[in-house]
Formats: sequence, structure tokens, C-alpha cells
Amino acid sequence: MSQRPAAPPIRIEADYLLETASDPRKVAETMAGEQSSGTFVPVPGETPELKARSAARVERLEVLDDSVAAPSLPTTAAVDPARLRRARVTLSWPIENLGPSLPNLLATVAGNLFELRPITGLRLLDIRLPQPFADAYPGPRFGIGGTRRLAGVEDRPIIGTIVKPSVGFGPEETAALVRTLCEGGIDFIKDDELQADGPHCPFDERARAVMRVVNDHAERTGKKVMVAFNLTGEIDQMRRRHDLVRDLGGTCVMASLNSVGLVGMIALARTSELPIHAHRNGWGYLARHPLLGWSYVAWQKIWRLAGADHMHVNGLDNKFSEDDDSVVASARTCLTPLFPDKPCLAMPVFSSGQTVRQAPGTYAALGSTDLIVTAGGGIVAHPGGPGEGVAALRQAWEAAVAGIPLAHHARTHPALAQALEGAA
Amino acid sequence: MSQRPAAPPIRIEADYLLETASDPRKVAETMAGEQSSGTFVPVPGETPELKARSAARVERLEVLDDSVAAPSLPTTAAVDPARLRRARVTLSWPIENLGPSLPNLLATVAGNLFELRPITGLRLLDIRLPQPFADAYPGPRFGIGGTRRLAGVEDRPIIGTIVKPSVGFGPEETAALVRTLCEGGIDFIKDDELQADGPHCPFDERARAVMRVVNDHAERTGKKVMVAFNLTGEIDQMRRRHDLVRDLGGTCVMASLNSVGLVGMIALARTSELPIHAHRNGWGYLARHPLLGWSYVAWQKIWRLAGADHMHVNGLDNKFSEDDDSVVASARTCLTPLFPDKPCLAMPVFSSGQTVRQAPGTYAALGSTDLIVTAGGGIVAHPGGPGEGVAALRQAWEAAVAGIPLAHHARTHPALAQALEGAA
Repeated sequence: MSQRPAAPPIRIEADYLLETASDPRKVAETMAGEQSSGTFVPVPGETPELKARSAARVERLEVLDDSVAAPSLPTTAAVDPARLRRARVTLSWPIENLGPSLPNLLATVAGNLFELRPITGLRLLDIRLPQPFADAYPGPRFGIGGTRRLAGVEDRPIIGTIVKPSVGFGPEETAALVRTLCEGGIDFIKDDELQADGPHCPFDERARAVMRVVNDHAERTGKKVMVAFNLTGEIDQMRRRHDLVRDLGGTCVMASLNSVGLVGMIALARTSELPIHAHRNGWGYLARHPLLGWSYVAWQKIWRLAGADHMHVNGLDNKFSEDDDSVVASARTCLTPLFPDKPCLAMPVFSSGQTVRQAPGTYAALGSTDLIVTAGGGIVAHPGGPGEGVAALRQAWEAAVAGIPLAHHARTHPALAQALEGAA
Repeated sequence: MSQRPAAPPIRIEADYLLETASDPRKVAETMAGEQSSGTFVPVPGETPELKARSAARVERLEVLDDSVAAPSLPTTAAVDPARLRRARVTLSWPIENLGPSLPNLLATVAGNLFELRPITGLRLLDIRLPQPFADAYPGPRFGIGGTRRLAGVEDRPIIGTIVKPSVGFGPEETAALVRTLCEGGIDFIKDDELQADGPHCPFDERARAVMRVVNDHAERTGKKVMVAFNLTGEIDQMRRRHDLVRDLGGTCVMASLNSVGLVGMIALARTSELPIHAHRNGWGYLARHPLLGWSYVAWQKIWRLAGADHMHVNGLDNKFSEDDDSVVASARTCLTPLFPDKPCLAMPVFSSGQTVRQAPGTYAALGSTDLIVTAGGGIVAHPGGPGEGVAALRQAWEAAVAGIPLAHHARTHPALAQALEGAA
């Protein structure tokens, strides 16, 4: 995964998948104009020099496919289906148009582009940023090494689970579940994204009750379970909650990226003293149509640079609509350096219907154990209880890393054997 | 527009357009479970009482259409096209699940829903919020009345334009253009969303240069032109820029909603002493596919409650891919009260290829002049110069409100007559 990337580009670059019934080159030029110094009519004061200095450029254009049956997105323009084509387009901008500002980068690479009339499909595939962006943002403060150190887990995946039901439990019920999970040998527990500070389970009371259990367990066993407390809220609320978790001896906080937004995330990350577990709920509306929105490759770069330490990537054979290739591409990109001297690696978080069965495929695809896997039913539904559920997941990963088939490993590992029966 | 809404609901409600080849009722129940107390396997500690207290409910379900040719979105589930149906679904949640928190509301009504495997289309159509949300958020501090007062414009639309080219101008060039526009009688000028604090046109220098012109013009004529300075950036940057604009005597700031995000916007709005001009660039990736993402009706409620005073709605006969019905629905919703005792009305902003020609249709559709219209070419390309361009737009709106055909009004109004020729 961790190959050194090429030197950062001088200009900001963005790759798009474009679909249009017009000339793709012309549409790409329109995109470049719309997102920089283009004007539909000459304006007093504009000069060729001014415009050239700031103009976005079409760097590359490759027509991909001449057989598109129907427009992917509706438009008010007349579309001749016979002329529909897709192209991969790279645009570039001088960084001087905006400076190294992530919020303003969004308006530049993902602003008023998706609505252009001749466009019947547009997806942002990737972005590449000049060095000043690396200098301007913190990136993950903890990343893989810091998370492993705080969780006390080396050389294998961090095995985690989620507090469920998402809503309904009060602080004491949550803490009781956390106690069971700690006793089961879990490494990591996260709040559900639906549970932040509801009146039935206020954040402060929950954090206090849970950290009593976690600290008590750590004193007795030497193992401090990492709990990602969902502090999603307004800036001041998040900062206060962060400080409470830190003061209670907690080792992780969680935020929903699409709830908080970029500027809130940057504000949290610039001062966070704990790893930030970044939840991507809502990702579907940004990405689910293949000819619209964001690829995960582009999207996660923004959040890693902003400071996300853990990034959700769904999981193989998940309960959602995403295929495995897409999940693997997402996970790999989190482990690919952003800049040569500032890799900003984030730990990919696998979730959604994860059991022992996905361990071999996940390891084969990723070639790394630098990941968090969170299993709900995959742990608590083990016939021997959560402790056996955790043991089974660890055994499945041992087998995966050693290249031993699960069924073979299960012969000498009863927890795994029972999990395989249950997950069948 | 301003009909009084019904009393706020007791529970949080959200309406969705759903497409599935499974039983819509069953899928709606899955959505409700996924977004509240549902668990795929029984969990230690959960009880029927706990789950019932927190469960989301399917309030209404109406199957709309049995003739869907192909799935709108790909999924890994097997889809029998003959069984594809669309339904309008209303879910509800107890507010006690999250409390009156807009960030957490997003994870609840627009979180891990769009990716569910049996779903081949899902769009959030509308949301209705209980009274505690009205009490918890500021809403627009200025809205229509405050904006009119600061702009000095009553009983007609606020006529505006955009600094173009978006990038390329330095502070002095921007100020020179602003001088020309002020002398032309413009009411409102906005930065482009691509121009915030680039090194060629730093925010502070631009604000100082522009406000010198605006203040000078105000002293000479009594008219202070409202300039929406694009302060999009990190929280501290935005607050500092806001304070600078205020101290310079400015009357408006602008922020790109999708760049700043919800928590950043709330932080800005809670302390803003100036109207916030909310730009929606990036809206296309949230909304352009009709079976995915957000309707503007749902989306703008979040931002109005968070504090947006002006909301972009595109414009009739625009240069983008959106049809007029959609634009009109967006504008009308900004002028529809959110709560009986807290209407949170925001001024809709019409833009994109706006000229004199759209005035009658816009007025007919909206039945109101409570709007900002920003025209670029529609003003500066007037053969008589920007002053005549502004005059022509005012004349077009006089005619629209009076029910006089433009061509007729043009006979006695040469600026309008020339604009009509130019815009042909």
C-alpha cells in the first residue's frame, strides 16, 4: 500500500468521469471556464493576461466509451442518445486562485459543475494537491501508529464492535454492555452514529459510565479498550465533549463527517488530542449513482488532510448495496500516502455485516492488517457469547495472515469453528 | 407564500421517494429499523420496551407507480425489473432519540439509508421538525425585512450582480468594477464562490478596497450598496472576516454551504451581525439524480434554521440543467414558514443567465418581490452600460408586477427596450 507517491503537482488537479452528448473537449473547456476565469460575456476590466493567469486548464481528456444507451442524468438540453459519450477528464487550476484552503477547494473542484446543462453525468474521481495544502492542514494526528499505541494492538487488525441498539439504551445500560464486551477481550467499541447526546442517553453521563467500566477493566487487566464516543454536535459541544473524554482517560472520539461538515471537522481536528474516528453516514447520497457525485478516492483525501484518523469504508460482502471492488478500492486508498513527506495515512474501518468469513478476502485484497474491523452480530451472536465472538475474529485473522483456510484453522480453534457454523 | 403552517409535529418526520423491487412496506420498515432501534441480531440488554420507546415508525406509505423500466441505482441485490415500484414513504422518530440537534438530525434522516441493498432509489423529499428545533436554533437573523432595511430597497426585488471574472481580479480591479456598478445604481453585489481569499485577491485587501468605494458612494448618494463578501474559510477565519466587514461598514457576508458544512454555518450564524448570503455551489452532486439525495425543500429547511438569510435557488431559463418547475418550487419553499411562531423566511436568490426576460415568469410563479436577482451578462452586457442594465431590470420588474407585457412597457422605457433587443 504505502508506495511513495510522485512529487505533488504544481497546480491543483482533478479527474472527472464525464458523460455528454456534446463534444467532450468543448464541455471540458466549459467546465474549466465555469470554475475559473470564464465569463459568458466580456466584462469591464478583464484582460487576456488576467484571464490567462487564473484560467483552469484541460490537462487530459480520454474518450472512454461510445456506447451509452441513455443519459444518466436528466437535463433541459436536447440530448441525442446516439451521440452520448463518456470521457475521463483532468482539469487543473493555479493554486493562486484560492490558496491552500480546503473549504475553497470544494467550491473549485466540486462546485457549480455537476449542474452544467450539456452534462448528463459527472463524477469527481480523484484530486491531487500541491504541497502548500500539506503544509496548511494537520492531517491525522494519530493515524495507524498512534491508534495502535493507544489501543495496545500490534500486528493484527483492531477488533471492534458497535453499541447496539443504536438508540434505546441509557448510560448505565450502555456501560453494562461495554463491560460484557471488555470482558470478552474486545479492542475497540464505537457508539452508533445515531447516538450522540439524546436526552435518554446524554453524552456526559454515557462517557462517565462507560469510562468507569473501561478504566476499571484496564486497571484489572492492563488493557484499555478504545471507545469512540460520538461527539457529533456544534463546535463548542464537540470541544467540550472531547475534553471530557480526554479527562476521563478515554482514547478516541467519533464524528459524523456529513453532519459536522468540513469546517467543523477542521476545527475539531486542529485541537484534538485524541484520534478521530470519522463516520461516513450519508455517503450514499454523495456517491451511489456511478455517474454523479464523489468517488471515495477523492472524498477521503479531503477528510484525511483535515485530520480524520479512522475512515469508514464499508466491508466485504456487506449488507449495503456496494460491491466488494469498490470497498477494496476505498480501503486501499486510505493506506496510500497523500504527499511524499506527509502520508496522512488513515486506518480504514470495515463494518456492515462483518464476520469471520470476510477475514481472508479482506486480507488478500488489502495486504495489510492496518485496519479496524467492527462486527455487531459477528461478535455478540456467537453461540459462546461475545468473548468467543472476539476470539473467533482474531483466529480468523490469524488464519488469513498465515494463509491457512478458515475451515482448516477451525479444526484446532473451537471459537472459530462455532462462528463458522453460526455464520453459515 | 406566507400561509401559516400547521402546528409542528410531536415527532420528527421525513418523507422519502423510494424505489425498490422488494415489498415497499417491508423496505420502509427496514429503513425505520436501521435508523433507530433495529438490530440484525438480538443484543444483550435489549428489551421490547427499550426498543419500542426509540423505534422509528412508518407513518404513511403510498405506492406511486408500478411501471419503472430499470433500477435507478445499481445494487448488489438481485433486482427483478418487473417488480420495481416507487412509493412515497413517511418515517417518524421520537425527538428523544437525538434531541433538537441539527447535526444529529442529518445522521438520522439522511444517514445510512441511501445505501440499503434492496433500495434502487431514495430521495429525501421533505422534513418536519418539532418545536424544540425552533427553540434551539437562531434561524435567519435578518431574513427579508432585515435585508431590505440594510439594502434600502422596499417593494421590489433587490437587483444584484456578481464580480466577474470570478478569479483574476485583484482588490483594486474588483473595487473599480464595484465603482462602475455602484454608479449604475445596483442594489447588491456578490463575490463569486470561487473568490474568497486567494493570494491574488486577499479577503482583507478586497474588503477594504471595495468598502472604500461603497462607503464613498453612500456618502455621495445616500445609497449603501449591499456587498456579499465571500468569507468561506475555517471558523476563525470566517469570524475574523465577518468582523472586518462589519467594522468597515459592510452589510452582508457570503458563505458556500457545502464548503463550510453545517457545524461551521451554525457557528457563523450564531454570532453573525450581518445577513448571511448562502451559496449552494455543489448542489448538483446532492440533488441532480431524481431518485437520489436531497430535494431542495428538505435541504433548505436545515440551512434556514441554521441561520441562512439568503438562499440560492438558480433561476428560470437558467444555463444549468434544472427545469423551471424545480426552480419555482425551491424559491417558494424559502418563502414558506418553517414554524407557526418562527417562520425563518429566507430571501430566495435567482441567478444563472438572468435577464429582463425572466421577470414576468418569476413574478407570476412566486407572487412576490421578496427576492434577490443577480444578473451578470444581463446587466454588464447592456449596450448602454451597467447603469442602463440595472434600469432595464428594474423596469422589467415594474412591468411584471403591474401585469404589463415587457414589449409594451419597453415602448416608454428605452433601457428595457435595448435590453430586450440585446437579450434576443
